Amino acid sequence: MNRRKFAGTIATAGILPQVAAAADPAPRDVTRILARYVVNAKYEDLPAPVRKEATRTLLNWAGCAIGGSRHETLDIAIAALTPFAGPGQATVLGRKEKLNVMHAALMNGISSHIFDYDDTHLRTIIHPGGPVASAILAYAEYKPVSGRDFLNALVLGTEVECRIGNAVYPTHYDIGWHITGTTGVFGAAAAVGKLLGLNEQQMVWAIGLAATQPVGLKEMFGTMTKSFHPGRAAQNGLTSAFLAARNFTSSNQAIEAKEGWANAVSTARNYAEITDNLSKTYEISINTYKPFACGIVIHPTLDACIQLRNENKLTANQIDRVELRVNRLVEILTGKKTPQTGLEGKFSVYHAAAAAIVKGAAGEKQFSDALVRDPEIIALRDRITTIVDPAISAEKVRVTITLKDGRKLEKSIENAIGSTKNPMTDKMLEAKFSDLADGVMPAAQARKVMDLCWGVEKLTGAAEIAKASAA
Amino acid sequence: MNRRKFAGTIATAGILPQVAAAADPAPRDVTRILARYVVNAKYEDLPAPVRKEATRTLLNWAGCAIGGSRHETLDIAIAALTPFAGPGQATVLGRKEKLNVMHAALMNGISSHIFDYDDTHLRTIIHPGGPVASAILAYAEYKPVSGRDFLNALVLGTEVECRIGNAVYPTHYDIGWHITGTTGVFGAAAAVGKLLGLNEQQMVWAIGLAATQPVGLKEMFGTMTKSFHPGRAAQNGLTSAFLAARNFTSSNQAIEAKEGWANAVSTARNYAEITDNLSKTYEISINTYKPFACGIVIHPTLDACIQLRNENKLTANQIDRVELRVNRLVEILTGKKTPQTGLEGKFSVYHAAAAAIVKGAAGEKQFSDALVRDPEIIALRDRITTIVDPAISAEKVRVTITLKDGRKLEKSIENAIGSTKNPMTDKMLEAKFSDLADGVMPAAQARKVMDLCWGVEKLTGAAEIAKASAA
Repeated sequence: MNRRKFAGTIATAGILPQVAAAADPAPRDVTRILARYVVNAKYEDLPAPVRKEATRTLLNWAGCAIGGSRHETLDIAIAALTPFAGPGQATVLGRKEKLNVMHAALMNGISSHIFDYDDTHLRTIIHPGGPVASAILAYAEYKPVSGRDFLNALVLGTEVECRIGNAVYPTHYDIGWHITGTTGVFGAAAAVGKLLGLNEQQMVWAIGLAATQPVGLKEMFGTMTKSFHPGRAAQNGLTSAFLAARNFTSSNQAIEAKEGWANAVSTARNYAEITDNLSKTYEISINTYKPFACGIVIHPTLDACIQLRNENKLTANQIDRVELRVNRLVEILTGKKTPQTGLEGKFSVYHAAAAAIVKGAAGEKQFSDALVRDPEIIALRDRITTIVDPAISAEKVRVTITLKDGRKLEKSIENAIGSTKNPMTDKMLEAKFSDLADGVMPAAQARKVMDLCWGVEKLTGAAEIAKASAA
Repeated sequence: MNRRKFAGTIATAGILPQVAAAADPAPRDVTRILARYVVNAKYEDLPAPVRKEATRTLLNWAGCAIGGSRHETLDIAIAALTPFAGPGQATVLGRKEKLNVMHAALMNGISSHIFDYDDTHLRTIIHPGGPVASAILAYAEYKPVSGRDFLNALVLGTEVECRIGNAVYPTHYDIGWHITGTTGVFGAAAAVGKLLGLNEQQMVWAIGLAATQPVGLKEMFGTMTKSFHPGRAAQNGLTSAFLAARNFTSSNQAIEAKEGWANAVSTARNYAEITDNLSKTYEISINTYKPFACGIVIHPTLDACIQLRNENKLTANQIDRVELRVNRLVEILTGKKTPQTGLEGKFSVYHAAAAAIVKGAAGEKQFSDALVRDPEIIALRDRITTIVDPAISAEKVRVTITLKDGRKLEKSIENAIGSTKNPMTDKMLEAKFSDLADGVMPAAQARKVMDLCWGVEKLTGAAEIAKASAA
């Protein structure tokens, strides 16, 4: 008998498809080149600005995960899966529960995406932090990981998922895949694989195992399952890396093979995006963070309104009317005139602009049910009009506020705050974090978590960040 | 603040793709019709032959899982994931380990597919038993499930996966997806959802959660990851059903939506295959079981050789030469003249036919390294020739054995044993089971497991089958 030798066979599954598969015109080394890079990349090789951006990604991710931690989406997921989530090895950020590494990663990935307020690699619309950071922070509570190794893994995981995303975007996304989940599995697998010290062949297999379990369809947008995607990507990535570490074999060319990932999930692909300029460019360098808890299409408007408010110390009762010259997408996507709930408020440029002027912010709090029904906000909202202007591209806006005393205040935005060309400052990221953590943990605890994120490179154990984030 | 209300938004992820998604020409009820069927289907509605075929599917699955249980693929998977697989709730068949429900299902799904010897829904090449039975048997050890409910769930899970497979085969398979994994998630989710007593809306969500986490690329064939697919499908289906049972929301039209599953994973689809004739036809009725532990392309040859041997009480030393008139695929896929290992033996019609004539069988034991190197087998193997005959279709063969005394023995096969038109008998299924269980458990224990499978409808708790299968 031959029980202990691998006996899976190609010919046993069917007949004709295997004949077709005999031809293989695909490039042969894409997966291996990527794996080799990850295996060999050192923390010391990372340019200082890359390390810095990684700390910003980490801090923004932690804030989002803490902020989402009390949402019913997470309550349900924890209640449903806790019977299968022992032993308690890792922290669910912002909560008291500890779950096993796999499920802690799942939950943190879910909560980090609940408000759709997480980081964005604008070129691909990937939210890179969720899958990678959720996986490696849970891992760091299971096996010791220095802050430097942690940051290196975060950079490399982001590199892997965004490069694979670059190779298939936009057709992959257009077909219906939620790219954060589908590429996130690779990012998490590579990052955890790096921490596990996989050799090149094992890293190739980890990527293969990731390829065979993509997560996420866009059809799930608007439901709890959207947030499930980065969480499950983290979990699948962990599973892939742990299996590969024991020499669970997989394809040697999972990404590029004729019947591999890129051909299955996309109608077009550019492998050079994966293999060119490795160690020379870093995708995490162009990561961005949302300053406002709503669709980016209205971010220019909110940026302009908050600037005008602050520069002029405006109050609602000074204002006669507000005119927004906007791109057509603003009306199409956020044209709701009389929203009734916080969620509807996210689809109303009128509510969002009114809230931004009155409160000076457009965070998660400004999209509460209560604020959407606030008489002062409603009164201002009804004095706001939009004019669609073909000359205004999606990243721009021109806002004119006419005061009751007859003065006109104007502001044009070319690149909204939070865009690649106009990034959020560290101070803004901290304000966003504090706002998200408010109601989940005391301000002093939030301050401690932020300090640990900024100083991650100095930590003996990155797990400190998780432990400090528990409720 | 609005922390406890769902706040995922469409517009927050990007800009243009959402505009494109506003149009939705898809049929609206496919997922719901399927969900409603599963929720309402009763054991009492099942025709007797359907119940019978379900017991055969169960027995064959259990035999394969037990047979694969000592393979290094499973050793590795258990070693890698045990730290995250507590508490011990369910049995890994053929072994002493107990893992949590999710991981027991994963392991049993893996082992059931290791030898590629499991059941086959020939129309789609789906191996339906693995994902569904692995999920519901592990579940049955966690919550009590009567034998009747168990069998009903097995039938319904098979129905769901095979119908969805029918809707997208063959293009889905041709693109590169391993259809057993991708549709198996649905089957497992529906079957577990049925046992959990999901209502219609929850079943719709369970299907949605299954849709968003497909498993399996064909590129993994020939590696351990191929067996991972049905296991992970079982695990993902369990996760989907448990989340849906707590009202974790998902799409209402996950299968058919413009950005849903069928559009993402296939270039063609026929939704009528999912929605027509529900409760009138049963896909499990056309399930088949492999009599030989190798690719189906050489099954007609093996059937003919074993019949000629048995009818004529042949021994190798009586035989001068063997001539096989075969379809061209036999040479293309299994033309290896001098195999060196058991695995290579599976790709050698010469070895397989020689072993079948000498041993009267072509089970896993006949593809051992030792038998491939056995002088008697080699001597006979070298006297076997193939002739490709355009008149011979893939399911046929004509075997001529010329004896040393000059006699010619001939046998033509139109439909090989194990095909839909010539199914394995219960006795053959038992012999296959016993052969697989040999070396894993005592014959008396194997007998007991078989009896439990045949009598599953009478069991108060289906978990008995799992408990009886432990090492």
